[in-house]
Amino acid sequence: MYYNNLTMLADLYELTMMQGYLLTNTHEKQVVFDLFYRTNPLGNGYAICAGLEQAIEYIKNLHFCESDIDYLKSKGIFKEEFIEYLRNFKFQGDVYAIPEGSVVFPQEPLLRVKASVIEAQLIESALLNIVNHQSLIATKAARVVYAAGGDSVLEFGLRRAQGPDAAIYGARAAVIGGCKSTSNVASGKMFDIPISGTHAHSWVMSFPDELTAFREYANLYPDMCILLVDTYNTLKIGVPNAITVFNELKAKGHKLANYGVRLDSGDLAYLSKKVREMLDSAGFEDAIISASSDLDEDLITSLKSQGSKITLWGVGTNLITSKGWQAFGGVYKLSAEITENSVAPKIKLSENPEKITNPGIKTVFRLYDKKNNKIQADLISLYDEKINENEDLTIFHPINTWKKMTLKAGTYSVRDLLVPVFLNGQCVYDSPSVGEIAEYCNNEKETLWEESKRLVNPHGVPVDLSLKLYELKRDMINEIRGE
Amino acid sequence: MYYNNLTMLADLYELTMMQGYLLTNTHEKQVVFDLFYRTNPLGNGYAICAGLEQAIEYIKNLHFCESDIDYLKSKGIFKEEFIEYLRNFKFQGDVYAIPEGSVVFPQEPLLRVKASVIEAQLIESALLNIVNHQSLIATKAARVVYAAGGDSVLEFGLRRAQGPDAAIYGARAAVIGGCKSTSNVASGKMFDIPISGTHAHSWVMSFPDELTAFREYANLYPDMCILLVDTYNTLKIGVPNAITVFNELKAKGHKLANYGVRLDSGDLAYLSKKVREMLDSAGFEDAIISASSDLDEDLITSLKSQGSKITLWGVGTNLITSKGWQAFGGVYKLSAEITENSVAPKIKLSENPEKITNPGIKTVFRLYDKKNNKIQADLISLYDEKINENEDLTIFHPINTWKKMTLKAGTYSVRDLLVPVFLNGQCVYDSPSVGEIAEYCNNEKETLWEESKRLVNPHGVPVDLSLKLYELKRDMINEIRGE
Repeated sequence: MYYNNLTMLADLYELTMMQGYLLTNTHEKQVVFDLFYRTNPLGNGYAICAGLEQAIEYIKNLHFCESDIDYLKSKGIFKEEFIEYLRNFKFQGDVYAIPEGSVVFPQEPLLRVKASVIEAQLIESALLNIVNHQSLIATKAARVVYAAGGDSVLEFGLRRAQGPDAAIYGARAAVIGGCKSTSNVASGKMFDIPISGTHAHSWVMSFPDELTAFREYANLYPDMCILLVDTYNTLKIGVPNAITVFNELKAKGHKLANYGVRLDSGDLAYLSKKVREMLDSAGFEDAIISASSDLDEDLITSLKSQGSKITLWGVGTNLITSKGWQAFGGVYKLSAEITENSVAPKIKLSENPEKITNPGIKTVFRLYDKKNNKIQADLISLYDEKINENEDLTIFHPINTWKKMTLKAGTYSVRDLLVPVFLNGQCVYDSPSVGEIAEYCNNEKETLWEESKRLVNPHGVPVDLSLKLYELKRDMINEIRGE
Repeated sequence: MYYNNLTMLADLYELTMMQGYLLTNTHEKQVVFDLFYRTNPLGNGYAICAGLEQAIEYIKNLHFCESDIDYLKSKGIFKEEFIEYLRNFKFQGDVYAIPEGSVVFPQEPLLRVKASVIEAQLIESALLNIVNHQSLIATKAARVVYAAGGDSVLEFGLRRAQGPDAAIYGARAAVIGGCKSTSNVASGKMFDIPISGTHAHSWVMSFPDELTAFREYANLYPDMCILLVDTYNTLKIGVPNAITVFNELKAKGHKLANYGVRLDSGDLAYLSKKVREMLDSAGFEDAIISASSDLDEDLITSLKSQGSKITLWGVGTNLITSKGWQAFGGVYKLSAEITENSVAPKIKLSENPEKITNPGIKTVFRLYDKKNNKIQADLISLYDEKINENEDLTIFHPINTWKKMTLKAGTYSVRDLLVPVFLNGQCVYDSPSVGEIAEYCNNEKETLWEESKRLVNPHGVPVDLSLKLYELKRDMINEIRGE
């Protein structure tokens, strides 16, 4: 809705490298880049990938307009030949991706781009920006939703998000991760996701007194009557006023449903229990107690363990900014060069074994236990490998190779996670609606063992390399180190 | 450039409250809201406010288009009368603001909105979103720049920012806060700010070997030849290759300037010293050593204290997401209602004294020491108060009132920080360029005492209330508590 073209959302070095490829006449070389991440955010046992729809829109709309060209010319570092190339730029490559809302793990290619090096290089930073952001927020949301147990979590972060997009696409990602709705009307409109909200302190303050403010609100919105009770004093003033108003609604014969109070400050554990007692004694056992005060998964877990009576959670700042882990950390690394008849795998070394990249054109096989459809392991393989479910499969840890596991023939099933999104520059993928992605994500979470879902020290799901990929990587490392 | 209309960037409750004001016929009541924050981010001694230009654009463009109207109608909660009102919505109020790039402190109104309650309510969330985001990043940038001493800091965070806007406007804010340039081409174009960059690992990996890659790069960009040396092995392979290429450039008679290496992994303190030695022995004493590996103000401070030889800092993730303090925490609170002949101040109470709002229509006087133009204190006052520089002025701490200070007549000067931005809905303010704002910000920082600039436990600048405001607040609290 808001953006039509993010082509210039690139780091300058993408453009200087592109010109370099062009001027050294290496620009048409076909290469493969993987977009992957190295560590699950926040100590989580998995991540939820998100942002593919926006990544697709970005690629579809790639083109340099005249004002972009004029700007680049003015920098004095680009030659006319390159400027001419940019004028006709069009992405003509292939993209494979893991669908949005999927449970994913470190090292797995979330997107695999095959294109000429000059095309593949341009899209690095924007793809990372989009996928990093939404995957981060979807994963954070999944944690908050897990902490809330069966309770609904509402996304309330617009005012504290890091800019308009962070709010708009963050709300999208939050709903994918499990939030029931957002307060953000722009997101509601753009993605057809439920919107919700109550009222602010200013509503109360703009009437002569709180009771009048509550009465007017109940009169206007009797079917969504959640009253914010902490403007003056929650227990002494706010809740008694709310009860008065609920009684008046009842007296008028209104069938109360979806009504209650919102706590926005103070000791939420204590207050929620007191408020529950007050509401119950007044005969409003089904009144909702909602809360919204710097919540996150840790605070919700703590409140639940203290027996709080909150059952509806409005989560703002800490969800929309992913408190405690502010960037997903996805990277985009060259993994292969395709020459006429062969594939030359590429590797980047590092002192840190986790930072050594996996060479070659790869895919990700997910192995499920046939009994219960839970994930046994993921296997990063070369793209032309096949797995026969009717044969035993032995997989092993890519660093501690003595950690082995054999899946017996017939007990496991296999899914290739990467699906085609662009082929020769043509989009071949229809993005599902956000509602559909959220439902898919919910099912994806069900494929995790309980031990991998918990928030603290979750059991890690094995992500192994196929024997063929393992040997390729080992040999390449030895060759470079040996030089 | 990208957005034309953020009108729907609102929390649903803004719209339900607006309808409430309309249907209770209280919508034309003139009110005043203050946008302020309560705590300096990251333990800093001050904040840098930013985002005003985008806030102005947002307000200028406020209108509901037909598709917005259709969407809102479809929700089934808005009456035709309100929908009709929205069709003709236009902001007609006054806005005063502290100019972008100013040094600001907690509790001070950064923006003051006077408008009918229905107009003032709509803009709450979007204003907060914009100002919170950019003020956060500008403040974080000021910290990083402080840590870098006289060295240049380059903003490199596009790929890790929380969405496209977080990158685009974050780069703008980073330059306001003191960064010399951004890698983000879109920001460079939109705000006419310097762009910079080097090359990626993929450049090195896409040539047969590193030396060839460096040679080609030097050939293309001899005047901006910063080589990334850690693709295979920094000390054994990367730096020797870089030196070879610098020697070749020299042999060709090229006058080397703005050249050097970039470190992107490993122990930066150790490596930078070794690399310095290697470059110096090869006769390249003026080669730059730059670094870019999860840097922030703490790491830069530590590297400098270890005698690192890095003099150019590319700061990405931790700056663009404000690691350690992910939201600015600005709020938007009703402070007054204007009736025919008088102003009715409004207050929100809280158990936490810092969360009690300051009532009434206010302004902020900044008091400077005439000797050195350093800030003595800020004084939040009622808008119609005056300060006579030719009289002694006694100010006192708003909570610990025994903390007093008397400024002697003639020794201090006064500036009213709030300037008019909109009057009766008309914009009366020309935003300076980002370059001008950055220069202004640099001067603003010079008005701080050194003790208030340091990163850890800075000396707090006093923000006091005028006696008149203090008494008004005290009386209002007593009245409500007494009820």
